Amino acid sequence: MSEIFEARDWDAAGRIGRLSVPRSGVTVETPTIMPVVNPHIQTIPPRELAERFGAEILITNSYILHGSDELHDEALSRGLHDLLDFPGAIMTDSGSFQLSEYGEIDVTSEEILAFQREIGSDIATPVDIPTAPDTEREAAEIELGTTQERLEAAAEFDSGETLVSAPVQGSTYPDLREAAGEHATGTGLDVFPIGAVVPLMNEYRYGEMVDVVAAAKRGLGPAAPVHLFGAGHPMMFALAVAAGCDLFDSAAYAIYARDGRYLTVRGTEHLEELDYFPCSCPVCAEYTPAEVQNGETERLLTEHNLYVTFAEIRRIKAAIREGNLLELVESRARGHPAILDGYRALLAHSEQLEHTDPASKSTFFYLSGESASRPEVRRHHRRLERLSVPDSLLLAGGPTDGAVETEEVWTVRPPFGPVPPELSETYPANAELPDRLDGEAYAAAARGVARLAEANPDCEVALATAGWPDAALAALPGSIELV
Amino acid sequence: MSEIFEARDWDAAGRIGRLSVPRSGVTVETPTIMPVVNPHIQTIPPRELAERFGAEILITNSYILHGSDELHDEALSRGLHDLLDFPGAIMTDSGSFQLSEYGEIDVTSEEILAFQREIGSDIATPVDIPTAPDTEREAAEIELGTTQERLEAAAEFDSGETLVSAPVQGSTYPDLREAAGEHATGTGLDVFPIGAVVPLMNEYRYGEMVDVVAAAKRGLGPAAPVHLFGAGHPMMFALAVAAGCDLFDSAAYAIYARDGRYLTVRGTEHLEELDYFPCSCPVCAEYTPAEVQNGETERLLTEHNLYVTFAEIRRIKAAIREGNLLELVESRARGHPAILDGYRALLAHSEQLEHTDPASKSTFFYLSGESASRPEVRRHHRRLERLSVPDSLLLAGGPTDGAVETEEVWTVRPPFGPVPPELSETYPANAELPDRLDGEAYAAAARGVARLAEANPDCEVALATAGWPDAALAALPGSIELV
Ligand SMILES: [Mg+2]
Ligand SMILES: [Mg+2]
Ligand SMILES: [Zn+2]
Ligand SMILES: [Zn+2]
Repeated sequence: MSEIFEARDWDAAGRIGRLSVPRSGVTVETPTIMPVVNPHIQTIPPRELAERFGAEILITNSYILHGSDELHDEALSRGLHDLLDFPGAIMTDSGSFQLSEYGEIDVTSEEILAFQREIGSDIATPVDIPTAPDTEREAAEIELGTTQERLEAAAEFDSGETLVSAPVQGSTYPDLREAAGEHATGTGLDVFPIGAVVPLMNEYRYGEMVDVVAAAKRGLGPAAPVHLFGAGHPMMFALAVAAGCDLFDSAAYAIYARDGRYLTVRGTEHLEELDYFPCSCPVCAEYTPAEVQNGETERLLTEHNLYVTFAEIRRIKAAIREGNLLELVESRARGHPAILDGYRALLAHSEQLEHTDPASKSTFFYLSGESASRPEVRRHHRRLERLSVPDSLLLAGGPTDGAVETEEVWTVRPPFGPVPPELSETYPANAELPDRLDGEAYAAAARGVARLAEANPDCEVALATAGWPDAALAALPGSIELV
Repeated sequence: MSEIFEARDWDAAGRIGRLSVPRSGVTVETPTIMPVVNPHIQTIPPRELAERFGAEILITNSYILHGSDELHDEALSRGLHDLLDFPGAIMTDSGSFQLSEYGEIDVTSEEILAFQREIGSDIATPVDIPTAPDTEREAAEIELGTTQERLEAAAEFDSGETLVSAPVQGSTYPDLREAAGEHATGTGLDVFPIGAVVPLMNEYRYGEMVDVVAAAKRGLGPAAPVHLFGAGHPMMFALAVAAGCDLFDSAAYAIYARDGRYLTVRGTEHLEELDYFPCSCPVCAEYTPAEVQNGETERLLTEHNLYVTFAEIRRIKAAIREGNLLELVESRARGHPAILDGYRALLAHSEQLEHTDPASKSTFFYLSGESASRPEVRRHHRRLERLSVPDSLLLAGGPTDGAVETEEVWTVRPPFGPVPPELSETYPANAELPDRLDGEAYAAAARGVARLAEANPDCEVALATAGWPDAALAALPGSIELV
């Protein structure tokens, strides 16, 4: 696993990675989206996906090819890359979705793995059992056991240069997802799809989706390349990348276009309800919504959906490079209350995010009450416990009138709390804040003050509290003198 | 004024308007951006601004034309529209900026107004006095007096079919800005630029910018077409439109491109620091940041800046049409802490916003602690005072176990508070909320409960408070039974 995937830049649990795909000899930069290509219907030919939109990898379904009178033999004889005319990497799915939809399929995991190798798939997938959210615990455990047997068998399979994915199941049980992740990396397989999350996304249960991803990631560890299976809406890419996902796959770009749905990073619009195109892409810069109803509607909407999708991937990579991925998630969380819920769920895992979050980035932007729960604030609070303090200390937000005499004066800066002089110009304490601060910023600052005071019971701490709301003052230890 | 500007759709203080420009016989749809065209240097020819980017109106400086050996006579003989080869409307500035920069100019307000009429400007501007932020009060009053004399003289001027703008000054004094707005509409002039806000924007003082706009709007009233003079960065368009601005002007698209600056709705990037283009526009879809350094860099960055700028205008118009402009502002507020500060400042004016905010829109999205301060929440709270209540009432967030016997059960829904059954499926109470609610949502709900209880002292109110934080509970009147 570590041989084929290398993470070069980190932000929260997100990273820019390089996935080496040996069969095709290409390197795929992640995070990225794999357009889903239907072997039978292609609104946009795969070569155009590569050359015009920048797709480095796509995904298609080997089970459909296997069962196709028309294409089965041709896929074997010509090979998948020639059949689809795609110059990049190709991942294949196995029929697990069909199994979950129809209850049975007519191949075994071994048979379809062999077929995937023979048609030249770059990343093959065994037939796992996608256990739906809210499945009863016992059934989820039994199905996970079956999935794990299939993965172990797949690990024994001679895949040649074809990589093999190891789907992570476990329904909505965090402990099962974590155990599944740990088992999956233990098999030595290559790429790790988090499976059966589509129902959560369809029902806008993004908080639970994040909890599932966080649990799987705890088991998988930071070195595993992670595919969020079935996730193709650009409104949730930034959130999912920040949670540690590297690969997405999208059928949405094409399926949505078929019935007039228009993707944006803030949700889905319907063509017939749009008076203006809220987008700068080549389609939306050239046409109005009325003009696009011209006989080429599906093609043009598909193009728009792809432009928006790949632009968001580039935006996310730029944000990771600049160290402001969480700032991008802050914006995306305002696209829909369910994405906000997902962001709040992610911040509840800030201890986990902190493991891979860099100690220094570009300037920390305080952008909402949620910002007070970012991993950087948590890290600063822990750091406070390790600082050496004088016998007496004044914490002040601004210039003070000398009402108290103390050995030292430190600034106190919401949401971080106490900031000693030597840290005041460094990340994250040199944050940009709005003038109007919220209760969460002061509450976090109070936690920082309390943390420092409790770690140093012999230090006399005074705090200048002009502007502090009552709720934050109430959270301070009684030992602190308020001035 | 009301004859030339008609607002058709509203959201907060934002609106889609039609500005009728009689001299050219065109109608400009607002909100929109007027690209600033330098008569001497044009990276993008004006006709291309219209035909490729959709510019319906542009702005150029009549003072530069007036003082140009090369262009003065040509502007008079050919006329502005022919000189610039632009098919839409053209507004002209007067030299006020040069006056404020250099202390004097060599024309009078009357002379430059006459010149603007003679070259065929569609919207002419008198020479006002742009009083900088933080100017001493007395100086601001004196300068405002001069501006007002110039406006009165301009109102007497025979402009023919040329509209005349009436700049609103008053520095950072809300009462002066309000009085200036009221005086300006009283002159009977046509278009109302809010002047001298560029220093506020340059210093990222968006909270104060919003206070200035809100004050000017109180004086101008809702019928006046408002131009936020010198505002050209797309990151603040949504905020400014929600505050009631209709026209922007941008030199930024061209000036920024000259030194490699790249506009986005979340701020400004520098080309040399970008590894990926975070944008879907035709330039960014075709080139990488490395490839754009090809001898055509300035031209390509200018195009990108224009694509992004006009896409944001379309996005804002789509949001007004759909009734989710404040949701768009929520996203934009996460681009920079100073924009968040501007949004918080705007919500402090929610009583003022409520005057023009429609009673019903698409679904209210609760997207942050700020959402609890939206005008819709304020309106619902006022409405609670007018509802008829039974003798006893249970307010419950979800199903209750029948612990109390009351005549009626109403839902209580953060941030609105009590919602009687007949309002539960209507805007805004049918809002979408995240599962994880913040303290602001509960605090606003508590204010709603208190409002209802205080308006109906004879009603016995019980409140099911599962999940409520202590701070919100503490804000409830003692008369309410907590169950
Ligand atoms: Mg292998
Ligand atoms: Mg006139
Ligand atoms: Zn588009
Ligand atoms: Zn672009």
